[in-house]
Amino acid sequence: MANAKADAARRPGEFELIAQLFAPLSLKAPGAFALTDDAAVLAPRPGQDLVLKTDAVVEGVHFFHDDPPGDIARKALRVNLSDLAAKGAVPAGYLMALLLPDWPDLDWLKAFAAGLAADQAEFGLSLMGGDTSSTPGALAVSISAIGFVPHGAMIRRAGARSGDAVFVSGTIGDAGGGLAVLQGEAGAQSELVARYRRPRPRLLLGQALRGLASASLDVSDGLIADLAHLARTSGVRLEIDASRIPLSAALRAVWGSDTAAICRAAVSGDDYEIAFTAVPERRDAVLAASARSGVAVTEIGRVTAGEGVVLLDGDGKEIALPRKGFVHF
Amino acid sequence: MANAKADAARRPGEFELIAQLFAPLSLKAPGAFALTDDAAVLAPRPGQDLVLKTDAVVEGVHFFHDDPPGDIARKALRVNLSDLAAKGAVPAGYLMALLLPDWPDLDWLKAFAAGLAADQAEFGLSLMGGDTSSTPGALAVSISAIGFVPHGAMIRRAGARSGDAVFVSGTIGDAGGGLAVLQGEAGAQSELVARYRRPRPRLLLGQALRGLASASLDVSDGLIADLAHLARTSGVRLEIDASRIPLSAALRAVWGSDTAAICRAAVSGDDYEIAFTAVPERRDAVLAASARSGVAVTEIGRVTAGEGVVLLDGDGKEIALPRKGFVHF
Repeated sequence: MANAKADAARRPGEFELIAQLFAPLSLKAPGAFALTDDAAVLAPRPGQDLVLKTDAVVEGVHFFHDDPPGDIARKALRVNLSDLAAKGAVPAGYLMALLLPDWPDLDWLKAFAAGLAADQAEFGLSLMGGDTSSTPGALAVSISAIGFVPHGAMIRRAGARSGDAVFVSGTIGDAGGGLAVLQGEAGAQSELVARYRRPRPRLLLGQALRGLASASLDVSDGLIADLAHLARTSGVRLEIDASRIPLSAALRAVWGSDTAAICRAAVSGDDYEIAFTAVPERRDAVLAASARSGVAVTEIGRVTAGEGVVLLDGDGKEIALPRKGFVHF
Repeated sequence: MANAKADAARRPGEFELIAQLFAPLSLKAPGAFALTDDAAVLAPRPGQDLVLKTDAVVEGVHFFHDDPPGDIARKALRVNLSDLAAKGAVPAGYLMALLLPDWPDLDWLKAFAAGLAADQAEFGLSLMGGDTSSTPGALAVSISAIGFVPHGAMIRRAGARSGDAVFVSGTIGDAGGGLAVLQGEAGAQSELVARYRRPRPRLLLGQALRGLASASLDVSDGLIADLAHLARTSGVRLEIDASRIPLSAALRAVWGSDTAAICRAAVSGDDYEIAFTAVPERRDAVLAASARSGVAVTEIGRVTAGEGVVLLDGDGKEIALPRKGFVHF
């Protein structure tokens, strides 16, 4: 069928590409056989469960055509690692399906692979298998990440109980601010653009929260939207104090810090922070986990009986939100 | 960014879609939490290794826009199961990233999910996690399949030794014949089209070949191209007797059975059969495995010292091939 042939001078063939650029990413995973077999093999680790996650990023949806290829690669990997982080898992490996239109040339692909290599070194995991296919459409990277947790210790979304405190890591809205800058909004802040292009999976924090957080998830659709998922799955209501939602100095410099800015940040996507709950008696342990992992954590609200998420102003009155976060359709 | 909103009357939103159509596919996998968590958890099975594979199918490359949606789903799953089959693995679960343009309506999506449900029942596995994203481009389905094999028993590509016999399951070229029919070539044979749209992963045969096959891989790029992979990885040469390559009656009715037809079949893609090697002394055991699994197996050649794959005519002379199989670019 449509067999998009690239100019051989511009880009090596499929199998050469795999051998030159991707096989080197698999060498620390003996069960990947340097990508020369049909599948990878992974021996179990005694006493450990596997944690499995798949997430795809698509040109024109999750990244821009002109984004640096290394950042596209890292975002594709990190959105998956962020989920492993929220579950308390330690990354082990990943599988990658790469859907390639005609346009990426060899330099682009080398930079893409270099981005993966840098993240593999930073986060301690290896490519275990892949598939490279031509596509008549948008470039897409679909990654499945594999991690380990001690048996039974994965932190679930369901587990928040009335009376728990609600926490969030890092700062909220930075990636949304970066996206706005890329879309032409005034107030260029390279720090915000970097947060949009290169999420920071909070792996050490997530691992430190095992046995401590009663529920946890990663914030990708927007803080309020994701807390709504947690509320629904746990069968509880979450009350969030707007004034406690942590905004970075870089974001405040662009959006300000009034209620409108806070609301906008709370419904922006792509934060890739961890939102979690814990019994208030463990607050000190949460702060110790934060210090140990080097990731700031802010208490932003509480769990009550009921359902849904409400954002409250300084008088405890509900703030109406026009939308809760990003949805694909 | 580009947030393709579908007409709400035409298709439910992202989260409703997951809850209505995809969550039911996960209910037999307790670690999938009905797709309400960030990730799935999978407990190891004592004495078993995991086998991991990812493969994507793309509209306009691996299937046609107008193919039945249930067949698109099944092909996406089966191309992965075929790799598990060739490795001797028993499927356990899969992750799916679905990249959706605007056009699939609710009926299309229901039929797609029904195709997955039918295959889950047939092959004994469950959806364990997924990601649904909008795309401005072609519809694509990226699946990562997870299977189990007894520790150390995965059948590798590297393992063929000089003196081994070469075998292939089923018949070769049927899917290529089906593709030709769909592209307008005369000689409509619905059986061939079915083979193109709906591969048959040879799971029982692959499992029966554990400890018996010295090397194995699935035939997806074309028999000769895939045997070349096996030859390279094993560091051997494969001699294939053209006249022994099994062609179905349906294919012979369209292409005939002369050398040209055999060559065309041997470089057609999408067979999803298993090609494997075994010491000739185990020939009876191979035939018994074939009988036990209900999948025909044909001996088509031998392993010698050297490199590459040659196709030989009745006089033992090499037949020149214009190309070896399908490559993506």
